Amino acid sequence: MTQEHHDADLPELGVAAVGHSFMGAVHSHAWRTVSHVGSPRVRARMRVLAGRDLDRTAAAARRLGWSEATDDWRRVLERDDVHVVDVLTPGDSHEEIAVAALEAGKHVICEKPLASSVAAAERMAAAARAASARGVRSMVAFNYRQVPALALARQLVAAGRLGTVRQVRAVYLQDFIVDESFPLTWRLQADRAGSGALGDIGSHIVDAAQFVTGQLLTQVSGTTETFVTRRPVEAAPATGGLAARGSGELGDVTVDDAAAFVGRGDGGALMTFEATRMATGRKNAMRLEVNGSRGSVAFDFEAMNELWLYDRDLPGAENGFRRILATEPEHPRLENWWPAGHGLGYDHTFVHELQEFCEAVHGGRDPSPSFDDGLQVQRVLDAVQRSAADAARFTDV
Amino acid sequence: MTQEHHDADLPELGVAAVGHSFMGAVHSHAWRTVSHVGSPRVRARMRVLAGRDLDRTAAAARRLGWSEATDDWRRVLERDDVHVVDVLTPGDSHEEIAVAALEAGKHVICEKPLASSVAAAERMAAAARAASARGVRSMVAFNYRQVPALALARQLVAAGRLGTVRQVRAVYLQDFIVDESFPLTWRLQADRAGSGALGDIGSHIVDAAQFVTGQLLTQVSGTTETFVTRRPVEAAPATGGLAARGSGELGDVTVDDAAAFVGRGDGGALMTFEATRMATGRKNAMRLEVNGSRGSVAFDFEAMNELWLYDRDLPGAENGFRRILATEPEHPRLENWWPAGHGLGYDHTFVHELQEFCEAVHGGRDPSPSFDDGLQVQRVLDAVQRSAADAARFTDV
Amino acid sequence: MTQEHHDADLPELGVAAVGHSFMGAVHSHAWRTVSHVGSPRVRARMRVLAGRDLDRTAAAARRLGWSEATDDWRRVLERDDVHVVDVLTPGDSHEEIAVAALEAGKHVICEKPLASSVAAAERMAAAARAASARGVRSMVAFNYRQVPALALARQLVAAGRLGTVRQVRAVYLQDFIVDESFPLTWRLQADRAGSGALGDIGSHIVDAAQFVTGQLLTQVSGTTETFVTRRPVEAAPATGGLAARGSGELGDVTVDDAAAFVGRGDGGALMTFEATRMATGRKNAMRLEVNGSRGSVAFDFEAMNELWLYDRDLPGAENGFRRILATEPEHPRLENWWPAGHGLGYDHTFVHELQEFCEAVHGGRDPSPSFDDGLQVQRVLDAVQRSAADAARFTDV
Amino acid sequence: MTQEHHDADLPELGVAAVGHSFMGAVHSHAWRTVSHVGSPRVRARMRVLAGRDLDRTAAAARRLGWSEATDDWRRVLERDDVHVVDVLTPGDSHEEIAVAALEAGKHVICEKPLASSVAAAERMAAAARAASARGVRSMVAFNYRQVPALALARQLVAAGRLGTVRQVRAVYLQDFIVDESFPLTWRLQADRAGSGALGDIGSHIVDAAQFVTGQLLTQVSGTTETFVTRRPVEAAPATGGLAARGSGELGDVTVDDAAAFVGRGDGGALMTFEATRMATGRKNAMRLEVNGSRGSVAFDFEAMNELWLYDRDLPGAENGFRRILATEPEHPRLENWWPAGHGLGYDHTFVHELQEFCEAVHGGRDPSPSFDDGLQVQRVLDAVQRSAADAARFTDV
Repeated sequence: MTQEHHDADLPELGVAAVGHSFMGAVHSHAWRTVSHVGSPRVRARMRVLAGRDLDRTAAAARRLGWSEATDDWRRVLERDDVHVVDVLTPGDSHEEIAVAALEAGKHVICEKPLASSVAAAERMAAAARAASARGVRSMVAFNYRQVPALALARQLVAAGRLGTVRQVRAVYLQDFIVDESFPLTWRLQADRAGSGALGDIGSHIVDAAQFVTGQLLTQVSGTTETFVTRRPVEAAPATGGLAARGSGELGDVTVDDAAAFVGRGDGGALMTFEATRMATGRKNAMRLEVNGSRGSVAFDFEAMNELWLYDRDLPGAENGFRRILATEPEHPRLENWWPAGHGLGYDHTFVHELQEFCEAVHGGRDPSPSFDDGLQVQRVLDAVQRSAADAARFTDV
Repeated sequence: MTQEHHDADLPELGVAAVGHSFMGAVHSHAWRTVSHVGSPRVRARMRVLAGRDLDRTAAAARRLGWSEATDDWRRVLERDDVHVVDVLTPGDSHEEIAVAALEAGKHVICEKPLASSVAAAERMAAAARAASARGVRSMVAFNYRQVPALALARQLVAAGRLGTVRQVRAVYLQDFIVDESFPLTWRLQADRAGSGALGDIGSHIVDAAQFVTGQLLTQVSGTTETFVTRRPVEAAPATGGLAARGSGELGDVTVDDAAAFVGRGDGGALMTFEATRMATGRKNAMRLEVNGSRGSVAFDFEAMNELWLYDRDLPGAENGFRRILATEPEHPRLENWWPAGHGLGYDHTFVHELQEFCEAVHGGRDPSPSFDDGLQVQRVLDAVQRSAADAARFTDV
Repeated sequence: MTQEHHDADLPELGVAAVGHSFMGAVHSHAWRTVSHVGSPRVRARMRVLAGRDLDRTAAAARRLGWSEATDDWRRVLERDDVHVVDVLTPGDSHEEIAVAALEAGKHVICEKPLASSVAAAERMAAAARAASARGVRSMVAFNYRQVPALALARQLVAAGRLGTVRQVRAVYLQDFIVDESFPLTWRLQADRAGSGALGDIGSHIVDAAQFVTGQLLTQVSGTTETFVTRRPVEAAPATGGLAARGSGELGDVTVDDAAAFVGRGDGGALMTFEATRMATGRKNAMRLEVNGSRGSVAFDFEAMNELWLYDRDLPGAENGFRRILATEPEHPRLENWWPAGHGLGYDHTFVHELQEFCEAVHGGRDPSPSFDDGLQVQRVLDAVQRSAADAARFTDV
Repeated sequence: MTQEHHDADLPELGVAAVGHSFMGAVHSHAWRTVSHVGSPRVRARMRVLAGRDLDRTAAAARRLGWSEATDDWRRVLERDDVHVVDVLTPGDSHEEIAVAALEAGKHVICEKPLASSVAAAERMAAAARAASARGVRSMVAFNYRQVPALALARQLVAAGRLGTVRQVRAVYLQDFIVDESFPLTWRLQADRAGSGALGDIGSHIVDAAQFVTGQLLTQVSGTTETFVTRRPVEAAPATGGLAARGSGELGDVTVDDAAAFVGRGDGGALMTFEATRMATGRKNAMRLEVNGSRGSVAFDFEAMNELWLYDRDLPGAENGFRRILATEPEHPRLENWWPAGHGLGYDHTFVHELQEFCEAVHGGRDPSPSFDDGLQVQRVLDAVQRSAADAARFTDV
């Protein structure tokens, strides 16, 4: 006996994505997966992928699993079968696309950092608040919140298991531009990218620190540094890829290679941060340690399935940081993956992110993190830059 | 401008799967993904899922992304739009399904261990050889070969970077039956499962050790042990899940909880193995260390993105095991995933496995590992059991 | 105001040592230190060092802190100001020296392995028992028992914190003879050393496994291997050093390079062991993992200040192996060293060993481990060799 | 044949120590050991220990191995058989003792931080320079320079193996005052201790960062924090111990619990620092990572025998941080300890420090680090405090 079936069983959610480079690939993987894991409440339909060049976009759509391709993202806003717009472009176009989509009644996910200026982020957050009043949802894509180990860290802090949070040390270490011959891509140009390591990866640790501790940064003292000030100009137009190739000519790097800053949380915590693309040998070391009066947690994305917990309530002679493999069914978002010890990867964080988004859209609530959360991060980054321009003096967020 | 497109761009490969518990979920994820990563040569179509109970199978098909469901796997062999059969059932039904599929001209992937006896495995390997002569392909699903870090280990050994391989120590440590109240599932019954830890996870480390070193085991000395000899009988029929619940009645455990064995490779290596489900606190510690005359490698699946390499050619005072994050584009199967440092998870090994399978089918070659490789592992496990029954005396494979 | 004082405050314990190579240096360091740490009950006096060559021994005595030197160890047995004889020679002379010393009424510490044969070890143990009846003490120097982390492991097992001990995996990995040009020192000759890796380092893990679990091995299945069968003959007489240099001529290696064995403990534990000098890149990886029904511990001497503990009593979602820095004042032997986190080194284990010895001598009790403990290890090693000669068949200890 | 000998073989160096708490115990251990390791050029004689209370000092002298005790350190300056004064008291008395000793022609070792103010440190450095001109030597006791792994890091940087040093991140994490009931010892009072975590442990990482990189800090931006502002007053007079007990009354904590600062090195490096006593679960995590254009090193004192090295010259696909066990005979100060893999402990760093001191005194050169090095650290700490008082504004050292 054979039974045919259709996906009519779940309500459909039509999705359009704008952008198809690195983030396009990761989000596509997540959209293909999200309705097949756990207990999905909606069935995502990958309707259309938007890009700048139609041929390249069409090829990407075929490769990544989208039904159609377009070179005009505004057109997708007119479609009734598109309910969601996923904004995956560089930061300087986020505002235009996201605000238009929200105004067209589309739920929006927007990659981080939310915008390339505080003013833009404020307008986006205002648009999101207005949209929410009409039942239109929005979310900023800080995917690290969806690492099970970090979500577990948040649970532990929220449950009081760490007591009063006193200190945070967060670093995000990469090394992909250590070589002086790495070219002057758009990521190294202030007018395109806003800032360098600070905005790109510093934004992640600012969000993660605030998320895990539940404290918002109120003031910061910051320093930025550019070690390699001139780099080869790219022969071809910037494509957004991480691994571009240079020509012979040199141009000015106008963003930071590294940023270090100290902040104070509204709950009294002292937090230190460092974001750098020059930490030779570190590939994606997004690390967070939180010390509280009752305990501590520590995390390193290079071992993303592990959360280290120290619990002062245990007897001293038997105590130590314990390595929790955050792969148990009881852990956040893990009830429907694999058995304990069978680790997850980077892309799963995006699946979880879309689970949160889809559940919120279906449930009629705003997903988390919101555009306001994205705005708060933007304000912190802006304060860091202002402080850095003022001899690192403490500056209000 | 909008462009519709169809997947007609790539030749289609129609797939049927038999079984939808743990392995069914993992393989489904891989089938959904395989044609969207890298440079696929075929487009997999998830035609039909076969199971025993039609309603449960249909529900699984919807959840996992299969177009149809059936309770009669023999029917799928008649379909022209099915080119591949993926065998995901318990070991005692592998032979019947795989041989029938091969004879029907379907390419076959079969989960490990290949069979529940050497005789069955021999018949399956013979069928696979005969099918290959007709252009029909087969593969046994030892997914750990497709962990990039382990594939890199193999590359290093094959390139002579470790010199003569002298020693291997391989363990596979789990703890899911430590609790004496864990019930008597089919996995703990010899007539269903063949053996316990030995066949289930010992098979993985035997295959991995042979794969990485390129040496086949020729004789073994083995010991098995059952620490908890009676366990609660399951109230309901066994479902194959790992986390079943017991009733009050006790029954006999008829498989090993742990197995330890020593083997000699045909290249002179001394290899030690241990497979256990009683290693309290170890969730999925599949570990392999290979010592050669020029260097060593070490691996632990609980940190699956890392390979540790010791290279004797470096100066002694600066030498040590180095932690390679096997996440670079140059690493096996990683040219098309994420940037360096963005780790993969358990399920990616299955995507890689299907990439190998699809490439081989498309390219007209036999994929690896073959049913003969599966048979070799079966013979080793059998020799371990015979040795264990003979006071651990060395026994030919 | 200045105050002169003398060491007359504590009873003196006159010590003689026999041997001044590697172990001589370590024990001398410990004798210099033992009366200055913690709450010593006796004051050790380093009276005389005995060796074969008077000039070299005298130089060693000056360097190591001994008041006198002699080339006739028998003479020290006649001295009234010598109360202790510390036997630091190769294994084939242990019996003669230790038995003579005991019969002369001297307390004896003897390096491991106790003897080069079971018969010799039995005679030594008998002599020790007879001496004990006369108040003369003896101890075999298994210093790893005095690693605070391992002593803590023993405490945890003894307190029932691990429940029933089911499995042990113990390895001792070194690599100092990986190079085929490493010469044929006495350690590689069966008539001098008894066995190779098995006796030298395998003895440590056998003792440690029995000590930590409290279970004695009753039967073993063993395999030994010599990978490099011929090595350069030493130009000069063997000096016992680890780093000798070879001449051009080759001679036969008559001991094992590696040994692997499985044993059963008298409490039902299944234990696996491996001792090797060919584990390229491993310098002194003496590792022990114990799995019990309630928890596990793991240890690696390359990180000797750490004990890893898994405690099943904690909630699963927060559980993991915790890294105890065994440097707290509450930890064994640590009440008098440095503050927490200020690690100890290899030599501290010998200070602790002498603390145990001195406390026992002063307190009128037998120190631990005894010659009987050394004999038990000897019997295990002998059974491993007999098993290895019998195709690894299980052999009674 | 027996040979008596005397220590007349080496020139004697008479030593007096002032202070006998924690540092007194560690230095005594090192003085007892220094002439028995390696190839000593002088024989240290532990003549006299000075303290405040004669009875307690005499007891300490007996326990720690000093021939005499005194309650008047000025008296030891008059003795011809005292050549060295080892200053082990709290920082506020360093100047008086060290300067007097130097003026009396005694070689001086002084514990860190050199003084409790920059002015005092300047006077001490001037006295040391004047003494050096008369052949009288002085050294500040930054023992972490003598950790073999850190000395190896320095060698690698000095040899250009890391290229241009761009970034340093240094933290020193402890947790011994996390508990709010920890009492108000002298270490928590500004008038006694100068500062809190900043001076006590921050001084170590400032010195280590400057030592390893060869760059001096020229400006800093700093923040300090006191999380627990009132603590129980000690019932008895402060004794300098780490583990004092409180009474019921509360008093004000007048030093920092934690300090975070950023600095710029004179070679262009951006360096971040954090010193804290509130990092719950961290016992003695003195960590240093240095990123250069060609490579990186990383160190953590909680695993003090390891140095992690990343060398960009190796091929990318095989590259990673390698864990060098800094226990090889080729490593700094290790030619005379134990075989590879047999780790050292905290106290060995003091033995090495005294080796450097004794070799320099014997060889007629100034040992390293000098009082000028201590002064530089003091200036950095002072600049941090000034910056912290000025809203973290960058401040010249």
